[in-house]
Amino acid sequence: MASLSQTELAKADGVDHSPDLNESRLERGRRVLAEVDGEAGQKVVSALADIAPDFATYLFEFPFGDIYSRPGLDLRSREIATIAALAAMGNAIPQLKVHIQAGLNVGLTRTEIAEILMQMAVYAGFPAALNGLFAAKEVFAQQFVPAVTPR
Amino acid sequence: MASLSQTELAKADGVDHSPDLNESRLERGRRVLAEVDGEAGQKVVSALADIAPDFATYLFEFPFGDIYSRPGLDLRSREIATIAALAAMGNAIPQLKVHIQAGLNVGLTRTEIAEILMQMAVYAGFPAALNGLFAAKEVFAQQFVPAVTPR
Amino acid sequence: MASLSQTELAKADGVDHSPDLNESRLERGRRVLAEVDGEAGQKVVSALADIAPDFATYLFEFPFGDIYSRPGLDLRSREIATIAALAAMGNAIPQLKVHIQAGLNVGLTRTEIAEILMQMAVYAGFPAALNGLFAAKEVFAQQFVPAVTPR
Amino acid sequence: MASLSQTELAKADGVDHSPDLNESRLERGRRVLAEVDGEAGQKVVSALADIAPDFATYLFEFPFGDIYSRPGLDLRSREIATIAALAAMGNAIPQLKVHIQAGLNVGLTRTEIAEILMQMAVYAGFPAALNGLFAAKEVFAQQFVPAVTPR
Amino acid sequence: MASLSQTELAKADGVDHSPDLNESRLERGRRVLAEVDGEAGQKVVSALADIAPDFATYLFEFPFGDIYSRPGLDLRSREIATIAALAAMGNAIPQLKVHIQAGLNVGLTRTEIAEILMQMAVYAGFPAALNGLFAAKEVFAQQFVPAVTPR
Amino acid sequence: MASLSQTELAKADGVDHSPDLNESRLERGRRVLAEVDGEAGQKVVSALADIAPDFATYLFEFPFGDIYSRPGLDLRSREIATIAALAAMGNAIPQLKVHIQAGLNVGLTRTEIAEILMQMAVYAGFPAALNGLFAAKEVFAQQFVPAVTPR
Repeated sequence: MASLSQTELAKADGVDHSPDLNESRLERGRRVLAEVDGEAGQKVVSALADIAPDFATYLFEFPFGDIYSRPGLDLRSREIATIAALAAMGNAIPQLKVHIQAGLNVGLTRTEIAEILMQMAVYAGFPAALNGLFAAKEVFAQQFVPAVTPR
Repeated sequence: MASLSQTELAKADGVDHSPDLNESRLERGRRVLAEVDGEAGQKVVSALADIAPDFATYLFEFPFGDIYSRPGLDLRSREIATIAALAAMGNAIPQLKVHIQAGLNVGLTRTEIAEILMQMAVYAGFPAALNGLFAAKEVFAQQFVPAVTPR
Repeated sequence: MASLSQTELAKADGVDHSPDLNESRLERGRRVLAEVDGEAGQKVVSALADIAPDFATYLFEFPFGDIYSRPGLDLRSREIATIAALAAMGNAIPQLKVHIQAGLNVGLTRTEIAEILMQMAVYAGFPAALNGLFAAKEVFAQQFVPAVTPR
Repeated sequence: MASLSQTELAKADGVDHSPDLNESRLERGRRVLAEVDGEAGQKVVSALADIAPDFATYLFEFPFGDIYSRPGLDLRSREIATIAALAAMGNAIPQLKVHIQAGLNVGLTRTEIAEILMQMAVYAGFPAALNGLFAAKEVFAQQFVPAVTPR
Repeated sequence: MASLSQTELAKADGVDHSPDLNESRLERGRRVLAEVDGEAGQKVVSALADIAPDFATYLFEFPFGDIYSRPGLDLRSREIATIAALAAMGNAIPQLKVHIQAGLNVGLTRTEIAEILMQMAVYAGFPAALNGLFAAKEVFAQQFVPAVTPR
Repeated sequence: MASLSQTELAKADGVDHSPDLNESRLERGRRVLAEVDGEAGQKVVSALADIAPDFATYLFEFPFGDIYSRPGLDLRSREIATIAALAAMGNAIPQLKVHIQAGLNVGLTRTEIAEILMQMAVYAGFPAALNGLFAAKEVFAQQFVPAVTPR
């Protein structure tokens, strides 16, 4: 009914996450995570090394090698969804910060991110929105912002 | 830093939710809710009539008259955020269904909605994603789908 | 600093939940649960009989024999707290209904209960408030309301 | 059925939140927030100034200008509901602290606040109650307590 | 520090989930899901067919092909963890029922399952425990129980 | 149907939490908490002394004097359930750390604990699993690990 197979989607969709067929899930996951998160992903992997190294592999493979690599939804929309979900759940502030940065990396503006977080007041309450906005404030403050471009 | 005032945004943004300055928050909320939710909003208002009629007013005014009417984020992106948040929270299935329909109303495809819900497996777990997908299945099944267009 | 012992509180507090010193926690719990919930408590106990009979005992003893029997907070205030918490959590609608009825039993008006639930929109989002209000609507509809008293 | 309109409630209710009809929602919200939260509200507003200044306006208008200003439930009861909800949700400790202080401001005793938090063990588990009690301990410790009054 | 690689674990661990090296993640996932859930898994897959068929593949691959197939924790312990988590979260009753049945399939007794659910009262509150116990009651009632074996 | 009374269980079960019949719930709770948590329990009790001393009593009595002392589920299984639940809920990190240590105390290996936490990615999402693993990393780092034993 609703959904097409990956192959059909690949044809129907302009976005080129085009799976290199020789690329493993792990390789694809590493590539997409680097594209989305920059260095943040690598820090998590290092932190996992002595406690659950296989979990770093799963983190590349399933979220990024499988889900984020799918055609059918662009990365900008994926980051909107993730920022909204993490802010609404309210119990994963470190990951919310990573994805606020990821949102900037894939083209969301600061204003758009603030709008997403404000909207969460409607669905998850004012504290969730406030805590999301304060997380965004921290992320925005750590970025280099060239003098001419005000945001 | 990040955010512009509403007035500045109104200038910077192509989207025309342009507040008719003579329109009250309640009127604007009614208009935007009708645009987004169609008749679903009116059902909620009727259901509230004998228990908390003022809450129907707030429901028009704050979420729709204030938040959804803001420039700075288009309605398609707003519905992505709402579908993701409600699926991740997992305790508001009736409202999730309303916003899956709203997502279709503002131009999300069934495939895009399914992608958002699948992605929630990463952030809120597989049960949240499954229950979201089954909610979408119910909404999609109730829609008239003309014979030629497969989705 | 903040808290007095039960004995000191018993002296300082006008409310008479005065523990009959010969009364066991179980007996006290049964008495307070009957006072608060009427027959609803007994239904839960019966439903537990063939799966976890000891849990019914704990349900009398800890929440009602220990907590609700404490001086230091009146039952009306305790039910305000419980209704708010259950509506905000949003994943325990059957228990929310029991405590909406319990709220009426200990003297909250329908209006006051509706106000508590509406307020949850601020802290837990509009869906939590709406689902709470619809639960209240069901409870209120099942009550006998004498003709002269409009609520 | 249950609910009266604001106007009817204003008549039926002794509490004087009586809306000055010339007062805007924003003005009313500022006034009620100051009454409830003292300076805490102003800190939040300042913190929002460079990320989402309009959100500070919404925070005055909806929670305080609309909800807390309603007749039908006194401020003491409203703070019981808010403390209970935030402790039960467990993911908004900064806001819980603000409302523990607000509870003291509107007349709740330390003992009553501790009772509300302890009761949350029943509905949201012992960790939620413990984390709530530790938040209260921090708030109580920051208060000036005159020598004679033991709490 | 804590964790060994899969290969080391395979050596250190008596349990034989021994990955047939020619078996794909999908095949392994199908096999483990059938072992754990019996037919319940297949029903979910069928239900997903017309909305998100790829999600059924992920459901085989990641939870069952990757996680449940890992040595280092036996299936009985894995089901204890899953039943506890789903009961505590309280927003995934259908999945909780599936895993209560799965718990029985991998050797947990009804008494052990009831104990796990009762214990959730401590961590997630009495409503979460009660709703978990009622879910278990439904699952237990649907099972064939031969006359001689009392449970 | 499913459950036996405590007395029947005491007979059917090899584990000896055998209630000394002269032991009060409080004494039994203190004993079991010391067995499970070592000194962590005492710290919580001290921290409660000036805010809610009775709550420390309840903490001994209900979770440990009642629930953990029950035959029918061994302590190792109880700690699996608790670690899973607290990691999945994601809003009680201090208590999760206490129970990761308690899990080690009752015989879970570091590997088993890491497996439980990784598995939570399936049910509560990758952030819940990651935050649980990082909590475990902190607990493991604070332990004395003799040179010869690699974990």
